Amino acid sequence: MGRLICVGLGPGDPDLMSVKAHRLVSGARHVAFFRKKGRMGQARRIVDGMLLPEAVEYPMDYPVTTEIPFTDPEYNRLLSAFYDGWAERLAALCVMQDVIVLCEGDPFFYGSFMHLYTRLKDRIAVEVVPGITGMSGCWTATGLPVTWGDDVLTVAMATLPEEDLTARIGQTDALVVMKIGRNLPKLARALQAAGKYDDAWLVTHGTMANQTVQKLSEISGEVPYFSIVVVHGQGRRP
Amino acid sequence: MGRLICVGLGPGDPDLMSVKAHRLVSGARHVAFFRKKGRMGQARRIVDGMLLPEAVEYPMDYPVTTEIPFTDPEYNRLLSAFYDGWAERLAALCVMQDVIVLCEGDPFFYGSFMHLYTRLKDRIAVEVVPGITGMSGCWTATGLPVTWGDDVLTVAMATLPEEDLTARIGQTDALVVMKIGRNLPKLARALQAAGKYDDAWLVTHGTMANQTVQKLSEISGEVPYFSIVVVHGQGRRP
Ligand SMILES: C[S@@+](CC[C@H](N)C(=O)[O-])C[C@H]1O[C@@H](n2cnc3c(N)ncnc32)[C@H](O)[C@@H]1O
Ligand SMILES: C[S@@+](CC[C@H](N)C(=O)[O-])C[C@H]1O[C@@H](n2cnc3c(N)ncnc32)[C@H](O)[C@@H]1O
Repeated sequence: MGRLICVGLGPGDPDLMSVKAHRLVSGARHVAFFRKKGRMGQARRIVDGMLLPEAVEYPMDYPVTTEIPFTDPEYNRLLSAFYDGWAERLAALCVMQDVIVLCEGDPFFYGSFMHLYTRLKDRIAVEVVPGITGMSGCWTATGLPVTWGDDVLTVAMATLPEEDLTARIGQTDALVVMKIGRNLPKLARALQAAGKYDDAWLVTHGTMANQTVQKLSEISGEVPYFSIVVVHGQGRRP
Repeated sequence: MGRLICVGLGPGDPDLMSVKAHRLVSGARHVAFFRKKGRMGQARRIVDGMLLPEAVEYPMDYPVTTEIPFTDPEYNRLLSAFYDGWAERLAALCVMQDVIVLCEGDPFFYGSFMHLYTRLKDRIAVEVVPGITGMSGCWTATGLPVTWGDDVLTVAMATLPEEDLTARIGQTDALVVMKIGRNLPKLARALQAAGKYDDAWLVTHGTMANQTVQKLSEISGEVPYFSIVVVHGQGRRP
C-alpha cells in the first residue's frame, strides 16, 4: 500500500522548495497536479526539469475556474464531482505505489488539495508537507517586515463582499489579501474606505522570474491570478 | 563588500529548510543567531551538524526576554541598545565577507531580525530568504486544513489585552495565536468568551522531535515558548 503525499512547493522560486519537497519530487514516479485546462499549471511549472524521465504525470484539469460564480450551485456540483473522481483515481493508484501531489505554497493554506484530503484521509495513508506560503514570498519581496511586536495580521480573500472587506481592513494592523483578479476595483474601494489604500503594496508572481512589486496606487487595469496585496504592520520596534 | 543574509530556517525540522537556506547555511563562514542567554537557541539547533568546521559563530544573547514586561521603558532601552550594538558589529563584519543570520520560521513574520534589518538596510547590502512559518508547521501537524474558500485568518499574539483577544477571536473564521507562554490562562478565557475554546488546538514544538498536538481543553499548566494555538476555518468545501 502506497501513500498519497502532498508536497508544498513554496511561492514559485524552485530554490525555495524545502529540502524534503525537493527530494520527494525528484524521486517521484507518479505525480499529480491541479491546473487550469489548457495551461501548464503553476505547481507543475515550479518543478520543471526536476522530474524523473520515467515519472508518470496526472494533470487534474479544473472543470471550471472563474467562468461560473462560486455562489452558483452548478459550480459546487461540478467541483464536487471533479474532486470525487480524482479521489477515486488517486486512491486506486496508491494501492500499488506512492503518489506525489504538487501544490503551490503551503497545501493546508487555501490549497485545493484539502478537497482531496478530506475525501481520502480516512481511507488511505495521506501525508502533507508544508511549504513557504505565497504571502511570505510576497512580503519578503516588498523589502519590509510584515508584522512587529503584537501586530494583528488578517488574511482575507478579495472574493468577500465589499463591506466585509472594508470592516476587516479597518480592524487590522497588518493585512494580506489574496484571490484578487477581477475583484481589484472592489478591493481598492474597500482599502480607500478603510484609509489604507496608500499603504498597500501589490506583488504579482512573488519570487518567480516575472515578479513585480509596486504600490497599489500605481496599478491600473487587470492583475494576474498570482497577485497579493500587503499592508505592513507598524507595531512596537525597539 | 559582503552581504548580510538572513535565512529563514522554517518551523524546526531541518528537512523543511529551503534548498536555498540549506545551501547558504552549509557554506557559511560567519554565522550569527539570536538566543536566550545560557541556551543553545532554536535557530542554532536547527542547523546543528550542518555548519562548516571553520565557521565562526556569533551568538547574539538577548539582554532580556520575559524578566521585564515589554511595556516597561527599560525593556525598550535595553533591546534598542542591543540591536544598535549588533547592527554595528555585523556591519563591520560585512565589510570583509558575507554574514549569515539564522532565523526560525520566516524572518519578516514577527522575527527579531527585522530590528537589525531596519538599522542596516540603507547602509549595507541585506538579503532576506523567506522560510516556512512556525504556524504552517503547526497547522499541518494538526492534520486539518486551516483555511477554506474565503475564510478569514487572523494571527494574533497572546500578549494582547484580554478584551482585544476576545474581540479578535469572535470576529474571525480561522485563528492562529502565538507568543503564548504565561498568557495561556488569559487566552483560554478569551477563547471561552468567544465560544471557540472547544475548537482550539495547541501545538508545541511543531515539526521538531518533541512535537505535541492536543486539543487545548486537554492542556493544564505551563506551555513552552514554542507553542501555537490553531482554530481551523470551516469555509466552503465542494
Ligand atoms: C488558492 S490560493 C493558494 C495559496 C497557496 N496554497 C499558498 O500557500 O500561498 C491562490 C492565491 O494565492 C496567492 N498566491 C500564491 N502564490 C503567490 C505568489 N507567488 N505571488 C502572488 N500571489 C500568490 C494569490 O493571491 C492567489 O490568488
Ligand atoms: C517571535 S515569534 C517568531 C515567528 C517566526 N518568525 C515564524 O515565522 O514562525 C515566536 C513565536 O512563534 C511561534 N512558533 C514558531 N515556530 C514554532 C513551532 N515550530 N512550534 C510552535 N510554535 C512556534 C511561537 O508561538 C513563538 O512564541
